[in-house]
Amino acid sequence: FAPMGGSMQRTIDFILELDKLKGVTRKTRPLGLDRLENSAEHSWQIAMMAASMAPYAAPGLDMPRVISMLLVHDIGEIDTGDTLVYVEDGWAERKAAEHAAVQRIFGLLPEPQAAAFMALWLEFEQGETAESRFANAVDRAMPVLLNLANNGQSWREHGISHARVVARVKGQINDGCPALWAHLEQRLLAAQLNGWFGA
Amino acid sequence: FAPMGGSMQRTIDFILELDKLKGVTRKTRPLGLDRLENSAEHSWQIAMMAASMAPYAAPGLDMPRVISMLLVHDIGEIDTGDTLVYVEDGWAERKAAEHAAVQRIFGLLPEPQAAAFMALWLEFEQGETAESRFANAVDRAMPVLLNLANNGQSWREHGISHARVVARVKGQINDGCPALWAHLEQRLLAAQLNGWFGA
Repeated sequence: FAPMGGSMQRTIDFILELDKLKGVTRKTRPLGLDRLENSAEHSWQIAMMAASMAPYAAPGLDMPRVISMLLVHDIGEIDTGDTLVYVEDGWAERKAAEHAAVQRIFGLLPEPQAAAFMALWLEFEQGETAESRFANAVDRAMPVLLNLANNGQSWREHGISHARVVARVKGQINDGCPALWAHLEQRLLAAQLNGWFGA
Repeated sequence: FAPMGGSMQRTIDFILELDKLKGVTRKTRPLGLDRLENSAEHSWQIAMMAASMAPYAAPGLDMPRVISMLLVHDIGEIDTGDTLVYVEDGWAERKAAEHAAVQRIFGLLPEPQAAAFMALWLEFEQGETAESRFANAVDRAMPVLLNLANNGQSWREHGISHARVVARVKGQINDGCPALWAHLEQRLLAAQLNGWFGA
């Protein structure tokens, strides 16, 4: 409980560096707002979504760890920007760039905090634990919920078809939170009937 | 693990209602951005700040609970909007309005999730547990950090003096995280010498 001199300033430098995530825009619009969503507010919303979805998590799931993963998982976008999940080319290079980014950004912090955040980031990316699978399900589902509530705004703007959405999100959502996928599958079918997808 | 029919839709309705917090603006600007900060991205940043400040928390503090409190503490602003912490009049009325707001918003959720979020919100407001005191310290300190990094932008724009900042934030920051206050006290004195406050 007596960190070395300079550790407080390094911690504050990290927290202020996080401000840049407020300037990273995504492709979805918040409901009722005429601007694109940013990755900082998105990170808050999916952390809240995970907490709210606790009744649909497997018994024994470490929900605080899920929430911590979701809070840190997009921080690399400070250096790389956001990429639409439907962009398939260059995914490996993109992930390598994000990894380098979080090494730089978490490296602003003193140890052991830097290592703790890096472990959360890697766990989310690897998607092997029950917690990271639930977190990935929530992260994949959130833009689907916004698009369903927006009458498919982003899908129509970017020409994304129903089949492409299902192919891109079903595996992770169904794997991490089957009850959520069962619900979304029906909503997506209804959305297709409504013409809310691109060609 | 088998919620009643309709619970998933109610949970999703709640998550989408949260989108409105992205449209609630605060008085501070994110660093380098020409717009006001919103309460959703602020909630993310202070959750990250609390996690980053773990080495400065008392041993045994339940950090996941701190983080959960910070994620929910501003949700009432969906109905009430943000109020500058330096506005002293009408604080009780304001808090009553926020309480009514979170009753409505958390009430969108099925139980027991609604009660869990309400308990977190009340614990933060009451500020009696070690966790809520740490959370309040972080919440009070974050705009100070942004203002220090912005050369006192919000203090100068709103005519807030050094003495008023200290009177408004010292008690909660020093109570919840003494090491953070010891650091900020010195930074605020330096800021005063720099002329970063209003009259």
